Amino acid sequence: MPRDEVLSEEAMGLLERGRRRLISEIGVEFLHDGAVEHFRRAGQAVDGNVVRLDPDFVLAQVDAAPAQFDLLARNPERTIHVGGRHMFFAPTQGPPFVRIGDERREGTLADFEQFCRLSQVFDVLDTPGGLCCEPNDRPLDSRHLDMLLAVQTLTDKPYMGAVITAEAARDTIAMTDMLLGPHTRNSARVYAVVNANSPLRFDTRMIEAMMVYAEAGEVNVITPFLLMGAMAPVSTPAALVQQTVEALAGLCLTQLVRPGAPVILGSFLSHTDMQSGSPGFGGPESALGLLCSGQIARRFGLPWRAGGGFLTSSQLPDAQAAYEGMNTMLPAFLAGANYVEHAAGWLESGLVASFEKFIVDIEMLRVLREDFTPLEVDEASLAFDAHAEVGYGGHFFGAAHTLERFRDCFYRPLLSSTENFERWQKRGGQDAVERAARIWQESLERYEEPPLDPATREQLEEFVTRRRVELGD
Amino acid sequence: MPRDEVLSEEAMGLLERGRRRLISEIGVEFLHDGAVEHFRRAGQAVDGNVVRLDPDFVLAQVDAAPAQFDLLARNPERTIHVGGRHMFFAPTQGPPFVRIGDERREGTLADFEQFCRLSQVFDVLDTPGGLCCEPNDRPLDSRHLDMLLAVQTLTDKPYMGAVITAEAARDTIAMTDMLLGPHTRNSARVYAVVNANSPLRFDTRMIEAMMVYAEAGEVNVITPFLLMGAMAPVSTPAALVQQTVEALAGLCLTQLVRPGAPVILGSFLSHTDMQSGSPGFGGPESALGLLCSGQIARRFGLPWRAGGGFLTSSQLPDAQAAYEGMNTMLPAFLAGANYVEHAAGWLESGLVASFEKFIVDIEMLRVLREDFTPLEVDEASLAFDAHAEVGYGGHFFGAAHTLERFRDCFYRPLLSSTENFERWQKRGGQDAVERAARIWQESLERYEEPPLDPATREQLEEFVTRRRVELGD
Repeated sequence: MPRDEVLSEEAMGLLERGRRRLISEIGVEFLHDGAVEHFRRAGQAVDGNVVRLDPDFVLAQVDAAPAQFDLLARNPERTIHVGGRHMFFAPTQGPPFVRIGDERREGTLADFEQFCRLSQVFDVLDTPGGLCCEPNDRPLDSRHLDMLLAVQTLTDKPYMGAVITAEAARDTIAMTDMLLGPHTRNSARVYAVVNANSPLRFDTRMIEAMMVYAEAGEVNVITPFLLMGAMAPVSTPAALVQQTVEALAGLCLTQLVRPGAPVILGSFLSHTDMQSGSPGFGGPESALGLLCSGQIARRFGLPWRAGGGFLTSSQLPDAQAAYEGMNTMLPAFLAGANYVEHAAGWLESGLVASFEKFIVDIEMLRVLREDFTPLEVDEASLAFDAHAEVGYGGHFFGAAHTLERFRDCFYRPLLSSTENFERWQKRGGQDAVERAARIWQESLERYEEPPLDPATREQLEEFVTRRRVELGD
Repeated sequence: MPRDEVLSEEAMGLLERGRRRLISEIGVEFLHDGAVEHFRRAGQAVDGNVVRLDPDFVLAQVDAAPAQFDLLARNPERTIHVGGRHMFFAPTQGPPFVRIGDERREGTLADFEQFCRLSQVFDVLDTPGGLCCEPNDRPLDSRHLDMLLAVQTLTDKPYMGAVITAEAARDTIAMTDMLLGPHTRNSARVYAVVNANSPLRFDTRMIEAMMVYAEAGEVNVITPFLLMGAMAPVSTPAALVQQTVEALAGLCLTQLVRPGAPVILGSFLSHTDMQSGSPGFGGPESALGLLCSGQIARRFGLPWRAGGGFLTSSQLPDAQAAYEGMNTMLPAFLAGANYVEHAAGWLESGLVASFEKFIVDIEMLRVLREDFTPLEVDEASLAFDAHAEVGYGGHFFGAAHTLERFRDCFYRPLLSSTENFERWQKRGGQDAVERAARIWQESLERYEEPPLDPATREQLEEFVTRRRVELGD
């Protein structure tokens, strides 16, 4: 599918000049002396913790980062190729709450594990990520260990690393060594989503985690999280410039720590509802922002993360949730995203991971993947013989062409219903959410834990137990 | 916004050869001797009622039809420019049933009138069409008069003409003469959606109506209605070829009746669920089919109707309805549609016009129109001063740049909620459908009937009364 180029060359030029001005004249604050020292040694202008970057130096760092790379999985069939025209998808990450039907409550480790299992069951998800919901019933200092163990053992897909502290990042790498073997060091094996503390700042913890991952050759997804009106000006062009500056400034640090460290340029651009002060998702600003962000990111030739995802502000998995989600994810496809987070389960501006919404999103994701699969046109597909057979005013139900193909000629829905009203009513008259509830439960029944060498599992469990004690939990 | 070109030149070439073969070797059946006689006199191969067309003759007819034209409204501000990069939108047309909340029942003239009022209230709809729902409480032979009177008096927008019989088409034109004045004859003033009786057939009634409208210089929207597996082969390329052949064959007839008669090339391409035999809407086949249809139609340089619309098979205005709708309408935008029907209210594969879904669709349509409004990038939009003011890690709520723009910097939703959970719950915890119910009722309260000269109204009403008697009702 073609990628949409919505900005003119003139607009691209203005945005580029804006980016050069912002990064060199106002710059970015790094709340970490070691990071600042890296920039000073590289000859960049340092003023306290503020770094003002030479735009050409920035482009040289962009060139140092790899355009494409593999992200290893313990099951080699699950290894992800990152970059180019490849896309990969993770479920929603970070919600403190979960919703199951009418129940809305704090997330637990058991919920987290269920989301891992669902992420394993559905092939359209390439990774469970690493924070499907917050496991509030586990101690804060060591819960990253519980989550890592869950993604490592309940799925055989690549996963996300912890960024809460440098120590948690080191734990991630140590456990990944155990899972994949030390010979895989220096390959990209985990990815870390590093948020800027926008505007124009990276805080200490995020920098520390980013440096640990960069040093190890793991992947940093450097993601400004911008809600226009709060962390960015109320103007999409200004936010686009800021987003690029922040992502590139973070990228520069990774390349100073380790030239060639893999990076995914991140974006996450939405707006603030200026009446309520609440964040708004799925509206036209983010749709257009995504298309522009993709176009800008392509100029740098690096893998790019789209900011969503089936995002929505809706409190329920209703029509609003679905149309806001589609209005974010379809532009992410059009924009040529390489990585999309929050591709299943996101609800209520990201505060809630919903089991029913998870299924709604899986269905939408499956449909979109088909939408973006090029149509094959050849002589057989023209079905001239079928027309010769059926003629004028007839129907094709019994045509030879149909009988040969009817089993797999069309997309088969997971959730959507085409039942006529009478049959649908007889079968309970369920809406999409009620059907989704049944589907996620049945999907968990289908789940099989991927096999893992018992010695490796034991080693991981011992590590978690030991570290939990060391961390005081 | 760019238009998506999803077919390669090679694929386009194959489809073109397929079209030339189908139209010249199998041809199209016209169940109307006068129509066939037109083709015979033009030198085309006639075999009973089957007409096999010379592909180059077809292209000459395409060239005879206007690339762009105006569709007049009684309120000149509502006149629609058809073609080029302009789009216009009608609500759903033809459903026998209506749904209000949990009530699903046969549509009435009162429902029809309410949909007309809603079509007048919302500026994103350019026309009420002419068959918002079937007025089942009116006599069959004369209900076209009731519907015409409603669209003419309750809205001041252009409208759709009746196609049920040649007489109904003549009534449409007569009433349009009264409304707009006889001096507007020979301008395009009404549009008629003429369906092929696919595959490869036009039936007598449709041909008669089409000929009446063509003769009067009114607009024919020639629309093959193809559900792959039923009226077309189970292959999208074959259906694309068939769709083009049927639309062009109809176009040829209009040009033979009156060279230069305005035409909109129609498309309506979806699939049959091969398990249930029911029609399926909003899936990947129709999304991709739309993009291809738009690309093909552009080669002919004529206005093009996209087949939907916020289409869905869902029985309720739920998440499925919203994502299937978005997965049809967003491709229609990308495909560069000039006319889109079923842009508000469509439910249950077109059997139901839903008042709540009407509002859901209006919201989605408003969002999509914003999505496709080019972003303005200029120096002021870069907000450099705001960055200088806010600096590192601050927020933009109070920045001068924000205070100047906060009232209209972002899209304002009609239906979508960004309320936080506590506030939303306190205000009743309504989902999108419950809020939509309130919105359509409030919108009807806001409705004002557009002024109409009393003499004209009297003339129209007298005509309807007289014709009703003549038709035996």
